[in-house]
Amino acid sequence: MKVELQRVAPAEIEARSMEIITAELGERTFPADQLPVIKRVIHTTADFDYADTLCFSPGAVERGVAAIRGGCTILTDTRMAWSGINKRVLEKFGGRAECFISDPEVAEEAKRRGVTRAAVSMERAEALEGPVILALGNAPTALVRACELAGAGRLRPELIVGVPVGFVNVVESKELLMAMDVPYIAARGRKGGSNVAAAICNAMIYLASGNARE
Amino acid sequence: MKVELQRVAPAEIEARSMEIITAELGERTFPADQLPVIKRVIHTTADFDYADTLCFSPGAVERGVAAIRGGCTILTDTRMAWSGINKRVLEKFGGRAECFISDPEVAEEAKRRGVTRAAVSMERAEALEGPVILALGNAPTALVRACELAGAGRLRPELIVGVPVGFVNVVESKELLMAMDVPYIAARGRKGGSNVAAAICNAMIYLASGNARE
Repeated sequence: MKVELQRVAPAEIEARSMEIITAELGERTFPADQLPVIKRVIHTTADFDYADTLCFSPGAVERGVAAIRGGCTILTDTRMAWSGINKRVLEKFGGRAECFISDPEVAEEAKRRGVTRAAVSMERAEALEGPVILALGNAPTALVRACELAGAGRLRPELIVGVPVGFVNVVESKELLMAMDVPYIAARGRKGGSNVAAAICNAMIYLASGNARE
Repeated sequence: MKVELQRVAPAEIEARSMEIITAELGERTFPADQLPVIKRVIHTTADFDYADTLCFSPGAVERGVAAIRGGCTILTDTRMAWSGINKRVLEKFGGRAECFISDPEVAEEAKRRGVTRAAVSMERAEALEGPVILALGNAPTALVRACELAGAGRLRPELIVGVPVGFVNVVESKELLMAMDVPYIAARGRKGGSNVAAAICNAMIYLASGNARE
């Protein structure tokens, strides 16, 4: 069997991918601020379902970009999401990415209280100084706890990226988020992931740096 | 709007998810060795397409499990995949996970040669001692280079997990892998990802430890 590879220079691969995504989205139109986020998530997943499932509260992308420009902390629920975020560019704005899931004290407290480590790790956000974006791509328990904390006024995130994935309380956790008075970007339904959470953050990081990389 | 959450204890969430996946796979049957891998990928992505697209060379799972039990190195193409691998359990067998993508020398060499960092990072596998599994969830250029090195006898991986995602040479890179005489697990088509690569490795790690966690 002969497999023919396209000859594309390393620096051109992403641009070529974005062209293909644009072509396959065809005549569909999206709000200009949301489009770079939608395209980057499709770029990361090769899954065009996200063109239908990504939901944005009004001005969510603008708000996320402003927070990044202001040097915010992006708090993730997993090390995978943390790893996927472009921290080099984020740090140029004075920002940083954090994740408390592997903190031994978080594990100990979760066990004692009979809740998930992810939920406890969200409570650690209360101690963060300055503006915070929550980027949650794995654990619905983290998203539910974040919504509770925000509802109680204990957390005031600039934006919640709520894209947990899976089968138990995942759909519900995202509906809960979208029913709240908190700026959000969410992926309706079961799908999402740490890679999706990171992709949404990176899309906003590139917008903040004036390079949408589409 | 009232959102009703299910009450599921933290330790039961994964088991409940696997029950739902099993129920939704319905009457479909899969080879017994492949099933835990397929289910874990669906657990990670909530995407049942993988029930159709995951392809296994004969005995691939058994080979991967044996390599893990033998203390192999799992080399990934991204930090995200590296982060997602359960290194605590892997290390119990004497194994480890590695990733050379962020090595400054890899970046420098890639720039000089006009190839991707991911491709150069695969060449670093030649210097690894002992059995190696390659787990490639992002860069088709890494998979193509790995296939070239294996074809030339410069690499003899126990298994290649080939699940890059995207639009440029992604489909082709996986067809190339599946046409080779190398043990593989691949996701045919555009879809895949660092999370999928990690999920496949974790499924084998749990099988190796006698805990399929289905």
